[in-house]
Amino acid sequence: MKTNPYPDLFARVREKRPLVHHITNYVTVNDCANITLCAGGAPVMADAPEEVAEMTAIAGALILNIGTLNAAQVQSMILAGRKANERGIPVILDPVGAGATRFRTETTKRLLDKLEITVLKGNAAEIGVVAGVEAVVRGVDSCGLAGDPLMIGSGLAKKLGCTIAISGATDVVTDGKHSLLVDNGHPLMGSISGTGCMAASVTGAFCAESKDPVTASAAALAALGLAGEKAAAEAHGPLSFKVALFDSLANLTPQDLAGGARIRTA
Amino acid sequence: MKTNPYPDLFARVREKRPLVHHITNYVTVNDCANITLCAGGAPVMADAPEEVAEMTAIAGALILNIGTLNAAQVQSMILAGRKANERGIPVILDPVGAGATRFRTETTKRLLDKLEITVLKGNAAEIGVVAGVEAVVRGVDSCGLAGDPLMIGSGLAKKLGCTIAISGATDVVTDGKHSLLVDNGHPLMGSISGTGCMAASVTGAFCAESKDPVTASAAALAALGLAGEKAAAEAHGPLSFKVALFDSLANLTPQDLAGGARIRTA
Amino acid sequence: MKTNPYPDLFARVREKRPLVHHITNYVTVNDCANITLCAGGAPVMADAPEEVAEMTAIAGALILNIGTLNAAQVQSMILAGRKANERGIPVILDPVGAGATRFRTETTKRLLDKLEITVLKGNAAEIGVVAGVEAVVRGVDSCGLAGDPLMIGSGLAKKLGCTIAISGATDVVTDGKHSLLVDNGHPLMGSISGTGCMAASVTGAFCAESKDPVTASAAALAALGLAGEKAAAEAHGPLSFKVALFDSLANLTPQDLAGGARIRTA
Repeated sequence: MKTNPYPDLFARVREKRPLVHHITNYVTVNDCANITLCAGGAPVMADAPEEVAEMTAIAGALILNIGTLNAAQVQSMILAGRKANERGIPVILDPVGAGATRFRTETTKRLLDKLEITVLKGNAAEIGVVAGVEAVVRGVDSCGLAGDPLMIGSGLAKKLGCTIAISGATDVVTDGKHSLLVDNGHPLMGSISGTGCMAASVTGAFCAESKDPVTASAAALAALGLAGEKAAAEAHGPLSFKVALFDSLANLTPQDLAGGARIRTA
Repeated sequence: MKTNPYPDLFARVREKRPLVHHITNYVTVNDCANITLCAGGAPVMADAPEEVAEMTAIAGALILNIGTLNAAQVQSMILAGRKANERGIPVILDPVGAGATRFRTETTKRLLDKLEITVLKGNAAEIGVVAGVEAVVRGVDSCGLAGDPLMIGSGLAKKLGCTIAISGATDVVTDGKHSLLVDNGHPLMGSISGTGCMAASVTGAFCAESKDPVTASAAALAALGLAGEKAAAEAHGPLSFKVALFDSLANLTPQDLAGGARIRTA
Repeated sequence: MKTNPYPDLFARVREKRPLVHHITNYVTVNDCANITLCAGGAPVMADAPEEVAEMTAIAGALILNIGTLNAAQVQSMILAGRKANERGIPVILDPVGAGATRFRTETTKRLLDKLEITVLKGNAAEIGVVAGVEAVVRGVDSCGLAGDPLMIGSGLAKKLGCTIAISGATDVVTDGKHSLLVDNGHPLMGSISGTGCMAASVTGAFCAESKDPVTASAAALAALGLAGEKAAAEAHGPLSFKVALFDSLANLTPQDLAGGARIRTA
């Protein structure tokens, strides 16, 4: 009998409690810390150039999120990313708002150029901007993509040599060869700030305990999405949904994930 | 039959989903993001000098909040504010803690001097400090104002050529000619951090869809206050109140606002 | 009849509403603000060198938390700390992640060297690092301490001439002569980000109204721990626990503390 890799990985995250080093925005950073804990990981936030490389060296994964980037923070991202690359620690890049300003678009390209990114995770518009296809970005929101996310993601994954995760009603995860579609989730996840950032944190925790970023990203997105489905059942609005989302992920078991993950091969 | 401008504006915010660019403090920034979403707007936070003007240019409103100001951020506020002024984008200034330190008082004056502010929103003490009347500020809390808020606000509005919104048990909104009093709200709103900041965010979303900052500010404060009244009914303490406040605003309809807004002409 | 110092102090905090100036990390800063309010204090956050000394001068306590430290912020901590020392305002140092990176360890030592710290509050590993005993730190988590916390804390308190508060299942508070053990708390407090930071905020509010940092720290930790016990009874997971923790502390009365505090002389 074939084992199911998703619940096994989730159980490993819970058991090993990987340290997830975040260099991230000051808007959703608390959500990233708590969702990492709820997923089973241990969050740490540090962005001073004096310490980022040292902190990354003891971490299981590094999250780079440009949600409120500034020049000093980007420099720290490069220092931390280089250490992660040197040590084979997975790096998750969340190019929040790429396309909205030149600074965000260019920083995304610079990070992709200077670092080996393990998973580039964004919404359709952000990934479209990186891929150079027509996309509509408004602030940090995706407003659509001209083309098929799977084809665009797959092509970009091959070009960059990394895994691409595109969030949406159906999430697309692909390394250009192996592609998975994740149908878990709930529309209320779009009603609060930070779900995308949280998805990157959970992806980091799962990548820390896996050698396969496609499997790990899909498992992470399925776990968070499944928690969202459960949370929606008891929510009275966006913020009670948010509270329930954290609770549901913390209460989610590998067995729940085995039963509830809706991951398909593309 | 005369239409009611408040629910009409609220419906327009919900329909248009204006982008609200925040340059704000790192204490309540997540609350600002989520309350903007719950009001019907789309939040974006960006404070790097490399990108603020570009972000403001695509926004419907700009929020400047000095809650944890520093020199670099103030410089970005000026860059963003100038772009907003150039494009006719409304600018909401929340002078958090003006009067508590010289840096806050002087920065407030500097921003008022260098930029055309659409709405200056503060508590009684902060507005009193700007108006140069006797006021007691303690940290970021207002502890009173020597004089009548309406008269002080009205005089300051004429002098500065902007709309003044003074939060309190009864909110005062005035441009010196046209003055409105808003009676919505609940004492529990003072039991949590960030209600004032959130009021500025909602005001920004409403100003983005209105040519009349007095009407827009009053509608925004009434909507948030009405959500607070509804939330108080189900709260067990400050934080369950806070969760319910977001939920209530998200669930509030223009019809609810038509029925529940307590806005009087002064 | 001997009065109970803990509820008396708690009542005084509620009555006086001391201003607690925080120079702290951007991860849990909102939690620090709200927990200060729930405890009965008034939070203010300010870290610009232009204003920190002036803000501290009007505060009842100063919190220095190195959770996301950077060079500029450390400089502000020293400016604020010197003003606090000059005015006899209690200073609480929370050396988050000391031992995880050299920057954190050295900054902790630098702050202890340059400032008179009233209460050094940390987990076992952080305090162990300062004490120079063998300790295991992983990110910002304590993973144990080689030795007895009371003995290590007591020795360090004598050496540094300050009060040491070590959080754990049983909290240890000692100035080297007088030692108290606090048994209040609940395991769910470790399931969310920020409990340690919040404990420092509450400690600051209590120290502002007391001349005895050992009594004040123990009362603060007992109050927060008791709120945690009450919150656990109604929680469905980490985030509903967190909401209930704030509510419970806000609803906690000095009488509740008199009845529920489990503080022992060591």
